Amino acid sequence: MRILEYPTSAEIQEAIRRPELSQQNLQEIVKSVFDDVQSEGDNALFRYTAKFDKVELESLEVTQAEFEEAALLLSEELKRAITQASKNISVFHANQFEEAKVVETMPGVRCWRKSVPIERVGLYIPGGTAPLFSTVLMLGIPASIAGCKEITLCSPAGKDGKIHPAILFAARSVGVTRVLKLGGIQAVAAMSLGTKSINSSYKIFGPGNQYVTSAKKFAQQLGVAIDMPAGPSEVMVVADESANANFVAADLLSQAEHGADSQVVLLSTSKEKVAEVQQALHVQLQQLSRNELAVKALENSSAIVVQKQELLSIINQYAPEHLILQTEFNSDLLPGIVNAGSVFIGPYTPESAGDYASGTNHTLPTNGYARMYSGVSLDSFIKKITFQEISPEGIQNIGRTIEVMAESEGLDAHKNAVSVRLKELSK
Amino acid sequence: MRILEYPTSAEIQEAIRRPELSQQNLQEIVKSVFDDVQSEGDNALFRYTAKFDKVELESLEVTQAEFEEAALLLSEELKRAITQASKNISVFHANQFEEAKVVETMPGVRCWRKSVPIERVGLYIPGGTAPLFSTVLMLGIPASIAGCKEITLCSPAGKDGKIHPAILFAARSVGVTRVLKLGGIQAVAAMSLGTKSINSSYKIFGPGNQYVTSAKKFAQQLGVAIDMPAGPSEVMVVADESANANFVAADLLSQAEHGADSQVVLLSTSKEKVAEVQQALHVQLQQLSRNELAVKALENSSAIVVQKQELLSIINQYAPEHLILQTEFNSDLLPGIVNAGSVFIGPYTPESAGDYASGTNHTLPTNGYARMYSGVSLDSFIKKITFQEISPEGIQNIGRTIEVMAESEGLDAHKNAVSVRLKELSK
Repeated sequence: MRILEYPTSAEIQEAIRRPELSQQNLQEIVKSVFDDVQSEGDNALFRYTAKFDKVELESLEVTQAEFEEAALLLSEELKRAITQASKNISVFHANQFEEAKVVETMPGVRCWRKSVPIERVGLYIPGGTAPLFSTVLMLGIPASIAGCKEITLCSPAGKDGKIHPAILFAARSVGVTRVLKLGGIQAVAAMSLGTKSINSSYKIFGPGNQYVTSAKKFAQQLGVAIDMPAGPSEVMVVADESANANFVAADLLSQAEHGADSQVVLLSTSKEKVAEVQQALHVQLQQLSRNELAVKALENSSAIVVQKQELLSIINQYAPEHLILQTEFNSDLLPGIVNAGSVFIGPYTPESAGDYASGTNHTLPTNGYARMYSGVSLDSFIKKITFQEISPEGIQNIGRTIEVMAESEGLDAHKNAVSVRLKELSK
Repeated sequence: MRILEYPTSAEIQEAIRRPELSQQNLQEIVKSVFDDVQSEGDNALFRYTAKFDKVELESLEVTQAEFEEAALLLSEELKRAITQASKNISVFHANQFEEAKVVETMPGVRCWRKSVPIERVGLYIPGGTAPLFSTVLMLGIPASIAGCKEITLCSPAGKDGKIHPAILFAARSVGVTRVLKLGGIQAVAAMSLGTKSINSSYKIFGPGNQYVTSAKKFAQQLGVAIDMPAGPSEVMVVADESANANFVAADLLSQAEHGADSQVVLLSTSKEKVAEVQQALHVQLQQLSRNELAVKALENSSAIVVQKQELLSIINQYAPEHLILQTEFNSDLLPGIVNAGSVFIGPYTPESAGDYASGTNHTLPTNGYARMYSGVSLDSFIKKITFQEISPEGIQNIGRTIEVMAESEGLDAHKNAVSVRLKELSK
C-alpha cells in the first residue's frame, strides 16, 4: 500500500486512478459462440460446455432430485443464515415498490405510471471455488418480489456435473424458476438468444469473468438489456483518529481478498491512524487463506492523509462502489456524498454486512460508474409504463397548446389528431 | 396498409414484425471522429462542423444575446404553449421524486436509499426542418427537477450559424446550463470526452439520425451511460366498433408522418371499423404536408381484425412504444398490459397529447424495448445510493449470519471484518 501524506491534487488523482481494465479483445470468440448457439441451439451449448468447462452433460436443467439433494448437503446453520439474510433482503427490496400515483396535470388530464415486472430475466452466477450463493439472493429476491414470470439462472457445473448445493438451495428458496448448468459465453448466448432448452431473457444480470463480461456487452449490442457495466470491485474507507484500526484493516482486507485487481483506498485525517492501520493489516494478512490475492490488491492501493475539508471532493471524484465512514464527523460528510454505490456508516457497519445480509443489494456500480448508475434494486426488474386518460373537458383545456406546438414543429398530423377531436366536441 | 382478417398467429407475427433496422456499419467513421475529438479537442469540433454541417462557426456556445433574440422571434402564442406544456411536464415529473425511507431490517440494522442527481448530463436535439423543441422540454425538465448541476445541450446550427429560436427558448426556460452548436457524431463525441469548450457528460440523452445513434452506442462502450437504445417510432391503436374512425385515422397518421420507417398497427374487433378507418385515412392524407412520408410508413403497416380475447397477447407480443385504446372495454384490457411504453386511454386521448403537453414523457422505448426498458422519467436523471448504519446491537444480531455465509463462500476476510467487531463488543 502506498502512503501519501498531504499530497497535491494531481498526486491524489494519480493515487486513486483505477488500474487499467484489461482490454483484451474477446469479440471474435464471443461472436462465434453466439453464432453457433443461434444456428445449432442446444447442441452448441453441450459442445461448448465440454470444451470450456470440461464436463460432458446429459441434460442442462437441474432436476428436482438435485435440488433435494442440495438441501440435504447444507448444514442447518448455513440454511438458517441464508434464510435470515433472505428475510432482510426481502424486507428492504419490498419497500422499494411504488404504488401508481395518478396526477391530474390539468383539469381533465390524468397521468400515471405503473410498475410492471420484466417478464423474463436471466441471472448469471459464476462457478469456481467460491460459490456465490449470496449473489443468487441479491438477484433472485428482487426478481421474485418484482413478479418476473420467468427467472432463469445459469451457473457452470463443476467437473462432477453438479452445481454447488448452496447455489441450488438459494435459487430454490428465492423462487428462481429454472436453473441450468451453463457457464461463460455460452450461458449468456443461451439467455440472449434462447434455444430448445432455455427461453431467451429480456435482461441479463450477474457478475462474471472477462468472457461473461464481453458476452454481456455483446448481448447488449443485440438489444438485450444488462444490469450494468462491469469492473473490478473496490472500497474507500474514510477514517479519522477516532477509528478502530483493527476494524479499518479488516474492512480493507475484505475488499482486497476479492482479487488481485481489487482496489482499496484509505483516506484519513490522521497520519498516526494510517500507521496503526498498516500495522493491523500486517497482522491480519497472516491469517487469511486468500492472502496472496489480498497482497496483490494492496499493491494497487493507497492510503492518503488529507485535511478534513478535502474528503468530500476526493470521495466524489473517485465515486467508490463501497464507501465506509469511520469518523466522528460522519454526519458532516453524508449530505455531500453524491457519487458512491453503497455507504456504510460508523464503526459497526462493515461492508460484509451489505455483501451478505443487512438487506441492501451487493450488486453495485464499480469503476466510477456510481457517477451515473445505481446498484441493482427492485427497479432493475421492472419497467414503468405511463398511462394517460383525457376527458372531453381535458382535451378542450389542453388542445390548443398541443396544436400550436405541433404546428411549430411542422407536424400537421399531430396537430390534426387534436383538431378532429376539438371539432367533434364543438358540434 | 395491409388488411388481415382473423389471421393465424403466424400471420399476425409476420404482420407486426418490425422493419429491419438498417445495419449500416458506421463504427469506423464514429471511431475516427471520437479519436480526433480526443486528440485535437475543439479544433476537431469546428472542423467536423464545417465538413458535415457545412457551417463555419466562430464559437460553439450560444450567447446571451442569441437567447434574447430567440425569445423575440417567437410568437406569444407559442411561448404560452411552451409554458403550459412545461408546467404539466413539471408537475408529472416532480411527482416521481421518492423520499428516502429508512427500513430497519433487523433491530439495529437501518438501511435506506437516497436519490441523488447525476451531476453532468448531455442532451442531444436534432436539427433539420422540424425543430424538436418539445424534446428539449421532455429531457430538460426532468434533468432540472432532478437537480443535475450541468445540463449541456447540443444541437446543430443551420447554414446561418444559428439554432432554431424555439429550441433556444425552450432550453432557456427549462434551465439548461449551456447550449452548444454541435450536431451529429462530433456532438456525441464532445459530450462523451469533453474538450476545452465543453465538459464531458456522464449520461447522454436524446434522439438522432443513424450517425447520432451509432455515436451513442460507441459512447456507451466507452462507459458513458445513454438513455436507451434507439429505433423508429411506432403506434398500435386498438379500436372496436364504438371507435370514432376519424380519430383513429388521425392517430395513425400522426405516427406515420414521423418518417418512412415509422410503423403503425391497427388492431380491431370490427371489420367494418377497419374499412371506415381506411376511408378516413384516404381523406385525411390529402391534407397533410408530410403526405409522402406518411404514405411510405403506411406501406409498412397493417390493420388486423381479431377476436377480443386475442388483443392482449398481440399487444404484449408487439410491445408498442405508443398504445392507444379506443374501445368500450378499455378497462378489461388495462390490467393485462405488460409491454408498452405509454398508453393512451379513450377517445379524447390522442398520442399528440403525450408527445407535447399532457405531462408524460415522449422519450419512450421503441423496437420492442418496452419489454425491458421504461421511458425517460425523473429516474433517468438520478441514481440511488444505498446507505446503512448498524448499531452494536445490530451487528450482534446479524453478525453470525454474515460469518457463516462468508465462510461458506470461502471469503475469510469478509468473515473477519465481522469477527473483529463481535470480539471487541464481547470484551
